[in-house]
Amino acid sequence: MTDKEPAIKPWGGRFSEPTDAFVERFTASVEFDQRMYHHDINGSLAHAQMLTKVGVLTEDEYQQIQTGLEAIRSEVEAGEFQWSVTLEDVHMNIEARLTDKIGITGKKLHTGRSRNDQVATDIRLYLRDEIDSIAKELTRLQQGLTTLAGNEAHTIMPGFTHLQTAQPVTFGHHLLAWNEMLERDYSRLMDCRARMNQSPLGAAALAGTTYPIDRAMTAELLGFDAPTENSLDSVSDRDFAIEFTAFASLVMTHLSRFSEELVLWTSAQFNFIELPDRFCTGSSIMPQKKNPDVPELVRGKVGRVNGHLISLLTLMKSQPLAYNKDNQEDKEPLFDTIDTLKDCLKAYADMVPAIKPKKDVMEEAARRGFSTATDLADYLVRKGVAFRDAHEIVGKSVAYGVEQEKDLSEMTLEELQQFSDTITADVFDVLTLEGSVSARDHIGGTAPKQVIEASKRAAQRLSQR
Amino acid sequence: MTDKEPAIKPWGGRFSEPTDAFVERFTASVEFDQRMYHHDINGSLAHAQMLTKVGVLTEDEYQQIQTGLEAIRSEVEAGEFQWSVTLEDVHMNIEARLTDKIGITGKKLHTGRSRNDQVATDIRLYLRDEIDSIAKELTRLQQGLTTLAGNEAHTIMPGFTHLQTAQPVTFGHHLLAWNEMLERDYSRLMDCRARMNQSPLGAAALAGTTYPIDRAMTAELLGFDAPTENSLDSVSDRDFAIEFTAFASLVMTHLSRFSEELVLWTSAQFNFIELPDRFCTGSSIMPQKKNPDVPELVRGKVGRVNGHLISLLTLMKSQPLAYNKDNQEDKEPLFDTIDTLKDCLKAYADMVPAIKPKKDVMEEAARRGFSTATDLADYLVRKGVAFRDAHEIVGKSVAYGVEQEKDLSEMTLEELQQFSDTITADVFDVLTLEGSVSARDHIGGTAPKQVIEASKRAAQRLSQR
Amino acid sequence: MTDKEPAIKPWGGRFSEPTDAFVERFTASVEFDQRMYHHDINGSLAHAQMLTKVGVLTEDEYQQIQTGLEAIRSEVEAGEFQWSVTLEDVHMNIEARLTDKIGITGKKLHTGRSRNDQVATDIRLYLRDEIDSIAKELTRLQQGLTTLAGNEAHTIMPGFTHLQTAQPVTFGHHLLAWNEMLERDYSRLMDCRARMNQSPLGAAALAGTTYPIDRAMTAELLGFDAPTENSLDSVSDRDFAIEFTAFASLVMTHLSRFSEELVLWTSAQFNFIELPDRFCTGSSIMPQKKNPDVPELVRGKVGRVNGHLISLLTLMKSQPLAYNKDNQEDKEPLFDTIDTLKDCLKAYADMVPAIKPKKDVMEEAARRGFSTATDLADYLVRKGVAFRDAHEIVGKSVAYGVEQEKDLSEMTLEELQQFSDTITADVFDVLTLEGSVSARDHIGGTAPKQVIEASKRAAQRLSQR
Amino acid sequence: MTDKEPAIKPWGGRFSEPTDAFVERFTASVEFDQRMYHHDINGSLAHAQMLTKVGVLTEDEYQQIQTGLEAIRSEVEAGEFQWSVTLEDVHMNIEARLTDKIGITGKKLHTGRSRNDQVATDIRLYLRDEIDSIAKELTRLQQGLTTLAGNEAHTIMPGFTHLQTAQPVTFGHHLLAWNEMLERDYSRLMDCRARMNQSPLGAAALAGTTYPIDRAMTAELLGFDAPTENSLDSVSDRDFAIEFTAFASLVMTHLSRFSEELVLWTSAQFNFIELPDRFCTGSSIMPQKKNPDVPELVRGKVGRVNGHLISLLTLMKSQPLAYNKDNQEDKEPLFDTIDTLKDCLKAYADMVPAIKPKKDVMEEAARRGFSTATDLADYLVRKGVAFRDAHEIVGKSVAYGVEQEKDLSEMTLEELQQFSDTITADVFDVLTLEGSVSARDHIGGTAPKQVIEASKRAAQRLSQR
Repeated sequence: MTDKEPAIKPWGGRFSEPTDAFVERFTASVEFDQRMYHHDINGSLAHAQMLTKVGVLTEDEYQQIQTGLEAIRSEVEAGEFQWSVTLEDVHMNIEARLTDKIGITGKKLHTGRSRNDQVATDIRLYLRDEIDSIAKELTRLQQGLTTLAGNEAHTIMPGFTHLQTAQPVTFGHHLLAWNEMLERDYSRLMDCRARMNQSPLGAAALAGTTYPIDRAMTAELLGFDAPTENSLDSVSDRDFAIEFTAFASLVMTHLSRFSEELVLWTSAQFNFIELPDRFCTGSSIMPQKKNPDVPELVRGKVGRVNGHLISLLTLMKSQPLAYNKDNQEDKEPLFDTIDTLKDCLKAYADMVPAIKPKKDVMEEAARRGFSTATDLADYLVRKGVAFRDAHEIVGKSVAYGVEQEKDLSEMTLEELQQFSDTITADVFDVLTLEGSVSARDHIGGTAPKQVIEASKRAAQRLSQR
Repeated sequence: MTDKEPAIKPWGGRFSEPTDAFVERFTASVEFDQRMYHHDINGSLAHAQMLTKVGVLTEDEYQQIQTGLEAIRSEVEAGEFQWSVTLEDVHMNIEARLTDKIGITGKKLHTGRSRNDQVATDIRLYLRDEIDSIAKELTRLQQGLTTLAGNEAHTIMPGFTHLQTAQPVTFGHHLLAWNEMLERDYSRLMDCRARMNQSPLGAAALAGTTYPIDRAMTAELLGFDAPTENSLDSVSDRDFAIEFTAFASLVMTHLSRFSEELVLWTSAQFNFIELPDRFCTGSSIMPQKKNPDVPELVRGKVGRVNGHLISLLTLMKSQPLAYNKDNQEDKEPLFDTIDTLKDCLKAYADMVPAIKPKKDVMEEAARRGFSTATDLADYLVRKGVAFRDAHEIVGKSVAYGVEQEKDLSEMTLEELQQFSDTITADVFDVLTLEGSVSARDHIGGTAPKQVIEASKRAAQRLSQR
Repeated sequence: MTDKEPAIKPWGGRFSEPTDAFVERFTASVEFDQRMYHHDINGSLAHAQMLTKVGVLTEDEYQQIQTGLEAIRSEVEAGEFQWSVTLEDVHMNIEARLTDKIGITGKKLHTGRSRNDQVATDIRLYLRDEIDSIAKELTRLQQGLTTLAGNEAHTIMPGFTHLQTAQPVTFGHHLLAWNEMLERDYSRLMDCRARMNQSPLGAAALAGTTYPIDRAMTAELLGFDAPTENSLDSVSDRDFAIEFTAFASLVMTHLSRFSEELVLWTSAQFNFIELPDRFCTGSSIMPQKKNPDVPELVRGKVGRVNGHLISLLTLMKSQPLAYNKDNQEDKEPLFDTIDTLKDCLKAYADMVPAIKPKKDVMEEAARRGFSTATDLADYLVRKGVAFRDAHEIVGKSVAYGVEQEKDLSEMTLEELQQFSDTITADVFDVLTLEGSVSARDHIGGTAPKQVIEASKRAAQRLSQR
Repeated sequence: MTDKEPAIKPWGGRFSEPTDAFVERFTASVEFDQRMYHHDINGSLAHAQMLTKVGVLTEDEYQQIQTGLEAIRSEVEAGEFQWSVTLEDVHMNIEARLTDKIGITGKKLHTGRSRNDQVATDIRLYLRDEIDSIAKELTRLQQGLTTLAGNEAHTIMPGFTHLQTAQPVTFGHHLLAWNEMLERDYSRLMDCRARMNQSPLGAAALAGTTYPIDRAMTAELLGFDAPTENSLDSVSDRDFAIEFTAFASLVMTHLSRFSEELVLWTSAQFNFIELPDRFCTGSSIMPQKKNPDVPELVRGKVGRVNGHLISLLTLMKSQPLAYNKDNQEDKEPLFDTIDTLKDCLKAYADMVPAIKPKKDVMEEAARRGFSTATDLADYLVRKGVAFRDAHEIVGKSVAYGVEQEKDLSEMTLEELQQFSDTITADVFDVLTLEGSVSARDHIGGTAPKQVIEASKRAAQRLSQR
């Protein structure tokens, strides 16, 4: 980054003193918006092609512009482009370089547009590409989850509510819960993509332009579904960035819950799973440690993305129309949200297939904690006891079990009959873990049969993306 | 609200001491969740009807339950229902009352479900109805905006960027910018509604139930598109509430921007519009004041909704599956978001058609501030000057104007020619406000012709909802 | 709440139509600001006393006002006061009632003040009293913690980092960690109280008043340290409310961490503590459940308070001076923050002394997980091995132990010597849990001796509040 | 940044496969924590000095370590240090380099500490220095404000409430309102500094260390007031970072309000002030534009800081003790908060003294809008009319003035007497702007005399920092 150039501002005509050097740096965006160079050039190419079609540029001028811009793209990609803070942003840097290269024709490129619609176009093009990358990682993660779920349809673990053992569930069923969350996230992402895919190009500074532009043509060249309907709105709103960030906050919230469970499950106390060493790190002082760094870090990063959501909402609060300089602050939160989300999804998509359940530990844990108490209550109801009364009977049995340190399945028939003489020897069928999970045999239930079908449906949906 | 009832808890069997009185109040939700009574009863009716079909209840039992629940609904609506904190929540209050009324059959209603799936169902039913109300108010506001926009397609005002006069725009064009924002909000609301309209009923506590329930039947009876796919996910996630609140934050952000402008425009300095007295209030000490209270208050209320969004995101961060008591905290932020949004939309839908633009003041303001400077630059470009050079010429003309206190249209041809001899007498055509706005004649542009067409397209879209 | 009164507004003079009925309700604050009635009356009494001293009111007028206001206070406390939405807020409701009672003299009370400084004063008086209540509950909670810590100075449990067993610590030491967090919170609360304890009364609408008021006198009468320095600032800023809410967010963050651990510790997997039944609830469907509702709910409520913090920050963002109607939105987030914090602190202050550690389980858990690995490394260092090399040796010993399912203390000397022949028989002294904790014997360390001293210092600090 | 080094991890002993390459980058912090190199080295020097004193290191070893660390500091400052992602963080990078340089003695430096207490120490040292820089800029800004305020004690402008003209105020008085806000911010910063200035060094991983360390000595060497009281708390909490960020959010909120007014005041509609060209930029398309970029950008940046506050609060929510990897996410929000705040304060401290009020425009604006209506009401009260009745009389006078387009001071005595015959010729004295402001002559009031005194008191306070 250099700031040694003579201060040739694109807007200096009416100014009587140069910009303060600190203010120049403070107000410049090129340090973070240069990452949009590729989309800025694509936008300029479409704009130039349209200007040529409507007669504002000649074919020859277009050729010069195209050649110049492609050369600049190569310079950037080769790391040879000299970015300048004095030139404020990615747009002016590229335009100034173009004029260096091709002379006065370079100055004609900005005809009929403004930085206001240019940046609005660039961000959407950039974000659209990133959405497509994110969609791929999300799909990859879901594929890993559904495959693992299918494989673990018969693995029994305790299901928790309030982190207390509640009822036995299958590990595959648990995995599919996360998949459902991500499935909705994917659908939100697609909605966001469809809604933002409108071309602001041609909105110019705020009111449109007096040149005979063809907005439908640039929209089509850039892969947008249509031009936007209102120029003031086009240069001014950033709701698509907020919607995207809200989507990202939800994915990260889901991953934070996933992470919390992985951290719990790798603790000595739960000990439900093994994570491969390559996803963990150790301690500089405690030689025995193997820390679940990836889940912990992902859990922490939800804060970052929620923070960016608040940044953007606060930014836009009560801004009058149309473009204000405040809007320059839209980029860093958005870019960091994209980067964070992509990294976290990649880490999870890599890690999930490598999760190894410790089946014996899981099953043993399910056996403890009176997890089949509901099954006993349901058994009583099937024998004609009202649900609330059955609940009371089982509650007393459990209190007895706590005192005697016996699970329900470990009690004798006589012990159980203390609480209700409706109980007979067939009760022990319903008190097994297998019996318990298999009995929850309806769509959405934890029965292995249902889990296998659900994982097939999930895989089917993924294959159709 | 009473807390005098004997502490007959639905879950007391294994407990050896009663709940602490303060804890009872602290953990109860009935003070705020009673507003879901109507949807709780509807959910119970569908559940009972399904239990009857699958043979868990007899037809006679169903009739008793139906009669009992409808009587309870009437009691609540008549303000005669005795809500009890001891009974914790809306669900237990209604069930206890049902058992009071119809005896042991009332205890059977809870067969095959849990409060976990019950509350997840109730919230969705409640929210769905509120979404439909909100959609109506949003449409009414948009109708007011598009009608006003059509009427004001020829009214000229200054368009601002950086709150500096930028280019003349039409007032109708400005109004349509707001309509576009709300149009996207509406579309987000419809996406949210479609995504949440899945039935969690039958997920039971977390794993499904051993009763032979028919989840497709209850889903259909309650107007859901389908049952949810996973029971753990169903009782645990609240992403639909977060998505709705994020939608609400965006509407409120848009209304805060709208409000900011109304406040500016009613100031003595802008003086662009008149708001009717009935939407304003006065001062207890300054007798001359007429304050734009409604826009100010709406602007302030964006904070409230953004806050609720953070509440819900924070709530869900890193919660392990499945249901945790934390989730009880989902309701108050959601309910207040709904109430706030409905009120603000109603206030705006009522107020917008009553906005009176002061056309002379607006037009005079547009005339000041060199708002046609871009038109002069475009004029020069059309005469063959490169855009960046034209910009420089106009910049110098403006600097001269600032010094001489003359707008561009007030300068003589000689004065203008100081800066470029390309300027000839036809320049004055492009320096009028009417010429300036009419020249921005493309889709999304501010030309009156475009604004009229855009307001028609907008009205057409609204009529198809 | 009634809205049937004739619409006699305090500011109606210049208005030509009545306020819209919906707008009246929408803009009224009396539903939530009536809770400040006590402080509003106190503020009015001080104002009236001062007006009497400076000669604006006669002594007789003051007596009438005092008698009238005290009668109103009694009416409110007896639940007999008729609040009216038409009268907008607590201030106008009380003033109107005063005029009903004592006639024209009541109208004189508002001389030399405005609702702007009146409400700024009321909020501070109200908040100051609530701060004092919160300080008491915080102290009570800390007392419970430090007492328990002193009692549990010798109880050994595993200390965790990354939720992996790290090193043995004492339970008392762990409890004191929470006390330190709360100690800083208390100190923040005291700073907040000192900073906000300035009297805005006399700032009037925004500029001060033309009456010969004595602001120092009202400040003193109301227990403020001094009058505020600038009238515009006084009626406009709400930073004290934001500072208080940020303090509350930190307390709630600390309590959410505390809660997370209590929830973990009551799980079957950790099983470290017992919470009395009176702080737990059960399940409507699973008879065996005993859920740690209080910690879960407190954990969830951190979202609520963080949300209020964002509400207030968003509210104030970019408000021009001085008072704007937006500021009416300051109250509900602040009031709910106060209520939430008081309830959570009370719940914890009641519950903490009743926490029962399961010492055997804790100690057994500490024994597993190679928690004394660091001690072995330190032992090697004391024998002359460089720390990083010692770390490597112990790492290999642990890998061997994982494979052989043996803790370090369970290995034979020969087994240990495989990894370093520096190890001799005295190694077993450092591999005991008691040896490990006792060796961390410096200020802030986990040695029982240090914990006992630290709990005494903590109790000493508390006794000096 | 290089990642080519052999993967010699400080904790590799028990691991059987190397860290995944992506995970290595994903979990490394060196890209952002390297900015703490200076404080990391200072912390290490103090630690080594203490280890020497207590006999863990020899004097000769200490000399080697000191020389080595100082050489590393020079390398970093010369830009010659090779940072490595494989070495994870600033701490391991520096330690590895030290061992390169001085051999096995370098490995001894980490004796008796852990990265957990090391990083906790580094952040506090770093933040403390930044707090001191921020305090200086804040003071410089306040000095500019109070000087300008003293100079503008007689300049009259309209005071606004609800952005409606309320009462005349002096510009100096308005400036001092901002100074009061910043004064409280400064005081919050000092409280934050005092509270965080405790040394966590010696807390080691979480429980303290078995070496005979002297925590009081390192605390003193590093300028801390004392060692922290609890090791678990020391490595785990980040409340000081949250408190600092909450402070920063308040400063930014205040600056956003200041900015909003500067933006309004530079608009053509207000036109109250002139900002020098060097703090403004122009438009790439509209040659006449002079945009108040600095205030706009600062206004936008409040979002960023509020976002960071939420990031940190979310990060810490419900983390169990002690250190978790999540905490690595504390740095970027904190660092960006510091950078943002320093830049914004510098921009304002530079800009404020250059604000040029347009006194004629301000005064003329104050003359419009019935700004002396309250003075007329007060006049009537002094003549014996009850305040509420006076308010009504003036309200009607204003309604007449609106209709007749006459300010109160432009009406004849006869016109005024239509509304009350208590009005006599002396009324015109109170209806002048000078009369109005001078009459608000009490502490905190807008009278020039008061403003001059207040600016002196403010300057006095600043001089005592």
